Amino acid sequence: MAEDMYPSANMHANLSERFLAVRQRSREIAEPLSGEDCCVQSMPDASPIKWHLAHTTWFFETFILEPHERNFKPFHPAFRVLFNSYYNGVGDKHPRPQRGLLTRPPLADVLAYRRHVDERMSMLLTDGGAREKIAALLEVGLHHEQQHQELMLTDVKHMLSMNPLDPAYLPATWKPGRPAPEMRWQRFEAGVVEIGHQGNGFCFDNELPRHRQFVEGFAIASRLVTNGEYRAFIESGGYAQPSLWLSEGWDWVRANDLCQPIYWRRDGDAWQEFTLQGLQPLDPHRPVTHISFFEADAYARWAGARLPTEAEWEHASQGCADFGGTALHPDACDTCSEDGQALSQLFGCGWQWTLSSYAPYPGYRAADGAIGEYNGKFMSNQYVLRGSSCATPQGHARPSYRNFFPATARWQFTGIRLAKSL
Amino acid sequence: MAEDMYPSANMHANLSERFLAVRQRSREIAEPLSGEDCCVQSMPDASPIKWHLAHTTWFFETFILEPHERNFKPFHPAFRVLFNSYYNGVGDKHPRPQRGLLTRPPLADVLAYRRHVDERMSMLLTDGGAREKIAALLEVGLHHEQQHQELMLTDVKHMLSMNPLDPAYLPATWKPGRPAPEMRWQRFEAGVVEIGHQGNGFCFDNELPRHRQFVEGFAIASRLVTNGEYRAFIESGGYAQPSLWLSEGWDWVRANDLCQPIYWRRDGDAWQEFTLQGLQPLDPHRPVTHISFFEADAYARWAGARLPTEAEWEHASQGCADFGGTALHPDACDTCSEDGQALSQLFGCGWQWTLSSYAPYPGYRAADGAIGEYNGKFMSNQYVLRGSSCATPQGHARPSYRNFFPATARWQFTGIRLAKSL
Amino acid sequence: MAEDMYPSANMHANLSERFLAVRQRSREIAEPLSGEDCCVQSMPDASPIKWHLAHTTWFFETFILEPHERNFKPFHPAFRVLFNSYYNGVGDKHPRPQRGLLTRPPLADVLAYRRHVDERMSMLLTDGGAREKIAALLEVGLHHEQQHQELMLTDVKHMLSMNPLDPAYLPATWKPGRPAPEMRWQRFEAGVVEIGHQGNGFCFDNELPRHRQFVEGFAIASRLVTNGEYRAFIESGGYAQPSLWLSEGWDWVRANDLCQPIYWRRDGDAWQEFTLQGLQPLDPHRPVTHISFFEADAYARWAGARLPTEAEWEHASQGCADFGGTALHPDACDTCSEDGQALSQLFGCGWQWTLSSYAPYPGYRAADGAIGEYNGKFMSNQYVLRGSSCATPQGHARPSYRNFFPATARWQFTGIRLAKSL
Amino acid sequence: MAEDMYPSANMHANLSERFLAVRQRSREIAEPLSGEDCCVQSMPDASPIKWHLAHTTWFFETFILEPHERNFKPFHPAFRVLFNSYYNGVGDKHPRPQRGLLTRPPLADVLAYRRHVDERMSMLLTDGGAREKIAALLEVGLHHEQQHQELMLTDVKHMLSMNPLDPAYLPATWKPGRPAPEMRWQRFEAGVVEIGHQGNGFCFDNELPRHRQFVEGFAIASRLVTNGEYRAFIESGGYAQPSLWLSEGWDWVRANDLCQPIYWRRDGDAWQEFTLQGLQPLDPHRPVTHISFFEADAYARWAGARLPTEAEWEHASQGCADFGGTALHPDACDTCSEDGQALSQLFGCGWQWTLSSYAPYPGYRAADGAIGEYNGKFMSNQYVLRGSSCATPQGHARPSYRNFFPATARWQFTGIRLAKSL
Repeated sequence: MAEDMYPSANMHANLSERFLAVRQRSREIAEPLSGEDCCVQSMPDASPIKWHLAHTTWFFETFILEPHERNFKPFHPAFRVLFNSYYNGVGDKHPRPQRGLLTRPPLADVLAYRRHVDERMSMLLTDGGAREKIAALLEVGLHHEQQHQELMLTDVKHMLSMNPLDPAYLPATWKPGRPAPEMRWQRFEAGVVEIGHQGNGFCFDNELPRHRQFVEGFAIASRLVTNGEYRAFIESGGYAQPSLWLSEGWDWVRANDLCQPIYWRRDGDAWQEFTLQGLQPLDPHRPVTHISFFEADAYARWAGARLPTEAEWEHASQGCADFGGTALHPDACDTCSEDGQALSQLFGCGWQWTLSSYAPYPGYRAADGAIGEYNGKFMSNQYVLRGSSCATPQGHARPSYRNFFPATARWQFTGIRLAKSL
Repeated sequence: MAEDMYPSANMHANLSERFLAVRQRSREIAEPLSGEDCCVQSMPDASPIKWHLAHTTWFFETFILEPHERNFKPFHPAFRVLFNSYYNGVGDKHPRPQRGLLTRPPLADVLAYRRHVDERMSMLLTDGGAREKIAALLEVGLHHEQQHQELMLTDVKHMLSMNPLDPAYLPATWKPGRPAPEMRWQRFEAGVVEIGHQGNGFCFDNELPRHRQFVEGFAIASRLVTNGEYRAFIESGGYAQPSLWLSEGWDWVRANDLCQPIYWRRDGDAWQEFTLQGLQPLDPHRPVTHISFFEADAYARWAGARLPTEAEWEHASQGCADFGGTALHPDACDTCSEDGQALSQLFGCGWQWTLSSYAPYPGYRAADGAIGEYNGKFMSNQYVLRGSSCATPQGHARPSYRNFFPATARWQFTGIRLAKSL
Repeated sequence: MAEDMYPSANMHANLSERFLAVRQRSREIAEPLSGEDCCVQSMPDASPIKWHLAHTTWFFETFILEPHERNFKPFHPAFRVLFNSYYNGVGDKHPRPQRGLLTRPPLADVLAYRRHVDERMSMLLTDGGAREKIAALLEVGLHHEQQHQELMLTDVKHMLSMNPLDPAYLPATWKPGRPAPEMRWQRFEAGVVEIGHQGNGFCFDNELPRHRQFVEGFAIASRLVTNGEYRAFIESGGYAQPSLWLSEGWDWVRANDLCQPIYWRRDGDAWQEFTLQGLQPLDPHRPVTHISFFEADAYARWAGARLPTEAEWEHASQGCADFGGTALHPDACDTCSEDGQALSQLFGCGWQWTLSSYAPYPGYRAADGAIGEYNGKFMSNQYVLRGSSCATPQGHARPSYRNFFPATARWQFTGIRLAKSL
Repeated sequence: MAEDMYPSANMHANLSERFLAVRQRSREIAEPLSGEDCCVQSMPDASPIKWHLAHTTWFFETFILEPHERNFKPFHPAFRVLFNSYYNGVGDKHPRPQRGLLTRPPLADVLAYRRHVDERMSMLLTDGGAREKIAALLEVGLHHEQQHQELMLTDVKHMLSMNPLDPAYLPATWKPGRPAPEMRWQRFEAGVVEIGHQGNGFCFDNELPRHRQFVEGFAIASRLVTNGEYRAFIESGGYAQPSLWLSEGWDWVRANDLCQPIYWRRDGDAWQEFTLQGLQPLDPHRPVTHISFFEADAYARWAGARLPTEAEWEHASQGCADFGGTALHPDACDTCSEDGQALSQLFGCGWQWTLSSYAPYPGYRAADGAIGEYNGKFMSNQYVLRGSSCATPQGHARPSYRNFFPATARWQFTGIRLAKSL
């Protein structure tokens, strides 16, 4: 990661407090879950909650305590392998599809591991010299943990959805949304724009360097596509019409007999949606979520539009200040026409697929060492998503943020914002 | 199942007590395990402990309480599907490979389910009329649960073996075995023999009817093959010599890069074995166990012998009274030359592969209804194993018992007894 | 193979003539086919015609010419690997699923290879000393080639069936069969019977040694099941009723969405059958063919019967002299009630699945060397078929013959003869 | 496809002659091959030569003759399905992996099909009115056939490479290349550039519309990477070092045990390369070819560089006039320093992977109807390649041409040109 991507330590008088707050939040997410809930892995793409709790701790132990703590001794020697996600530079890794077989260490031991590392980190942070040295990596570690906090919610949701009992993560506090305002097209002229992170705040290496792109004239939708709109796509035969789909997407639809979003359940003429609060009637006003790139792309074609590129999205989002809040499900849009903001639901609602494949920015350089494996090595066959979702932690979203997933990924809070060439 | 295969109820004055004792034993097996340990499924062939605890309860609820209890009401309506193993006659089934995703119901609820059904069963058993009607099915249910008790130990062993921490199910109480006595060949003349269950005791439908078979002259080994003997097979290149293997076995060895039994670990020149008591030095005197049919067959060919047929085994075992005892690992044979018995380690040690494919006896008839799916429908592409293992519950073994597994199964306590044609 | 299984050379005054006649027959089978037809492989289980033509030649070159010809020089050094089927003792093998990629050598070169080896073999056979030494292996080679002649027809049929143009191997000379006589049950008393090859004629090692078996009383059907009878099974929902199927068979039916025999085509209310003479109306009087073991077993259960064991079949067939004739499709049975023979359609019609897994006879011993790989190593997870089919060459069938295929194999001319326990 | 992408018919006085010349070339490519060679399919990605010959004919019959010929009657009704590649708008398609099973129609019939369609097309072209109407589609059809001409060579090469006899497509006329000149870095300033097709010549819809992009300063290599240079990458452990690979590429390398380019063969210390002229000593001076995107990307990282984007490549290639020539293997670069051209080997040598995922240009619009499936629906998870290869037909290359393949594709003539950010 480029040196300049991390703010200097003195910007964070309360680095220690922020560290503890972020760490605390992960435990809170696990709070409503049993040891059993935290242990199981429902698919290779998802990880058990317990593994998330341990791996985020491993990150601090491996990348900060090990090089910086005097007389470093690992909490448990086997954890270096067990909780390494994908850092070849650190050494061996427990196979990803077998993360759910780790009934030992039990959840209690992982929580003890967390406490132990938190105490050692707090101790280290009392040392000003060390604090300065580790500040940049600590920021990475905190944002890394925040990324996992979002994954914890989406992974546990997928796991619960596989259970015929339709169990809820938390009791339902569900209110029907108000009707969404009409979708408007916000227009932008052609020209050279700058994208990529700027300023002193934190960002990941993949958001750098800030650079120029030429964007032809385009229009972008004022809000996300709703469940009701997506339902019309389904009911007009959207999943049965090959001309709406990319070839690879069509093969995927056929091979998996897909006819609706992953968490939708048809109940005669009515629709329900599995949520973190259990099975709920489908709310037509809320944004459609848990949509793959292929579905988003097909919907856009059906709607006579297309997805935006990431440069278009980032350019259009400039000056939009609302960074949303966390929730267990995307909220309906009831403010966008009134709050004077051109675009609503940019953040805090659902990640928005772009047409842009995940690729390095011109001049991109990964950091040296194992930490350099954080982002760069995943830059193939994935699509960039922009914005943030209802499950994104506070303080983790920004306009230059580049999330990325394969074109078939459906278990994230992902939605659709349309665009058009002018 | 044929009427005559079940003893009359009056033979079991203490049916109620036996019921509670068998039920109790299942809970004891789960005792050393956490909720996490009980939830996870390590491969499609194995099931979570919690699922075993629930399914054996489902068996009594579905096949006995539902037809015989007045005002029957299921403990939980969804359990009928969730804990149905393979009875198409009962209706839908939760997919086998997804048994490990059921973090709900939690273990505590499954234990409550067990208590609930046990109480209703006990109540039913106080009614003499009902007791008589259900006696036969109750026997099946108890032996069914005992089969699952053995599977609980082998399934949890497989799950723990996948954990790099090598966790033990119970603390080690391990003593090196004494050297095994020399293997002798016990000879039997050609002639018509009778095999299949006889007498009033319980048996499964697949052990009936008792019938005649002609057996040519043969000899059978006095004891099982030891770890030391199997190690010699490995070290002489047994896993690299195609002429020792059945063609299908050789393909399986190559496709999976096999070079040793599933739980053996080579440590330089030394060998260790993963056991229910954790990793242990390989004991050369104990019988080799967790051996597939293909490995047993290849070893036999290497040793200039063959496996016995099930008729040979059953004929040879007549008059051998020792039905072994339960343990967490097969014991070494230190008594067989002294106890006056022709063959030792027939029971209580390791199941013994036979050359016989699992097929219906002449005149075999499955029971009517869903319970008829118990045995008959599995009579293809499996091999019969005889005897019993260290994990077989007391009272569950008998000379006519026909266990069966596919030729590649390795996670059961399966061993090798050699035979020869004369 | 045991020495005594091969007749002495002097029994075959015309060994040389028989050699040339058998060799000639293989070329005749290929006659109606183009180079393209002979090159392609439609599935891993099947081989290209060209490969069959070359491999049967390789057999003589490798097992007879190489050890017995003075100054042996291979026709082409690479052929030793290219056309080795499965003899590990001979060395490397070209991968089976890639046999269809061998556009070189072209068919013309393979035919030249055949001529070359035939000439060298004929030369060798003029030498009385050599003739005596090779007589036994030559017999194996001729019967081996006859086995491949049947496979050539079934493999090319499968390949042509994959072509939407429904091409015919030969022009249709199709006559509707006469109605089959009513099926009768022929009864046999319980007792010790002898099975296995006897006499001086040729047999394969797997038919030996002749030995005793005890057979309980049984009845066996006088003829094979017809298309019309099998159609009734289909129309009564046979493929949708799990209770009729072995568990593994049911999984196979579901996984492959099977609802009829492999070469049947439903055309509204009518049925057609793909044959070596192209698509034909389904003849209700001819025996059903191209049936898997699982289908045969399910049909038998539906019909209130079962399949015979191989001992029952061989015992029942004794004294039945009709060894059928070759044809491109099984003929209807119109003679069995009149010709005084208890059982009709034993030979020359369709191979008959038995309940017996393919296993060694007591005392079986494979030959030494690579030729010992001929039969024994396939004795797992296959079922024995008895009789012979319309595609079996003249002189290749006998009552002790043990054909074998996996339970899902459908591309052979396989049919159903029912049996019952008394 | 946009209207303006096709030149008006009067530009092509000799449309008819060009038609016949292109059609003739396809037959010439098949000339050295037998019917067997033309029938077989070596992997799902490749097609049989016969299928190529038929499909390119189908294209003219379906898209031109059917709508424009008076009294149109198809040559064979089944061909509409058999030789449809991927046009859902035309109807059903024969499954791609089964193209190699079509031994019928034989090659002779496909050649007759070609003659028949050629005659009808020639007749149609004599009608001025029709000629004008079909001119645009005819251009597409000719370029479509040229694309298949390149695939015919790469597909047959792959098929021959699977044959242990290492057969040659044509006899070797192989000369060692002269040493490649030193690689130079050609620099380009940052700025807005235009890319996409311009002018009246033919282009595919995916090259349009011409549009602006901002390109940051970069340098691009003067020539392609040579075999000798790539060999150094291998010998320094390039295939064993995860830090050089994209994560997905590394998984692919491990899963397939890759350690060298697909057609390289290690022979002790020496290397050979399988070519269309059989096995040849590896020429260190020729450009490395048959390289996947993942290998190209890893090599670039090892070399301290990266791949160019497609905008960089197209911008840098402007003014380079050499469009190469056809050959059976890429030639060594011996002219680039002398011919005054900044960049050599842009065309006629090996396709050059870019960092750019295949995506629509801003404002891209696919044509209406089935022909609109030509390009747009493949715009996911593929990478753009630029330039052309030794196998690209004359007149088919241009600077705006966008070829595309998945990141693992190795069987095309694909090479590496390096780039750098300034």
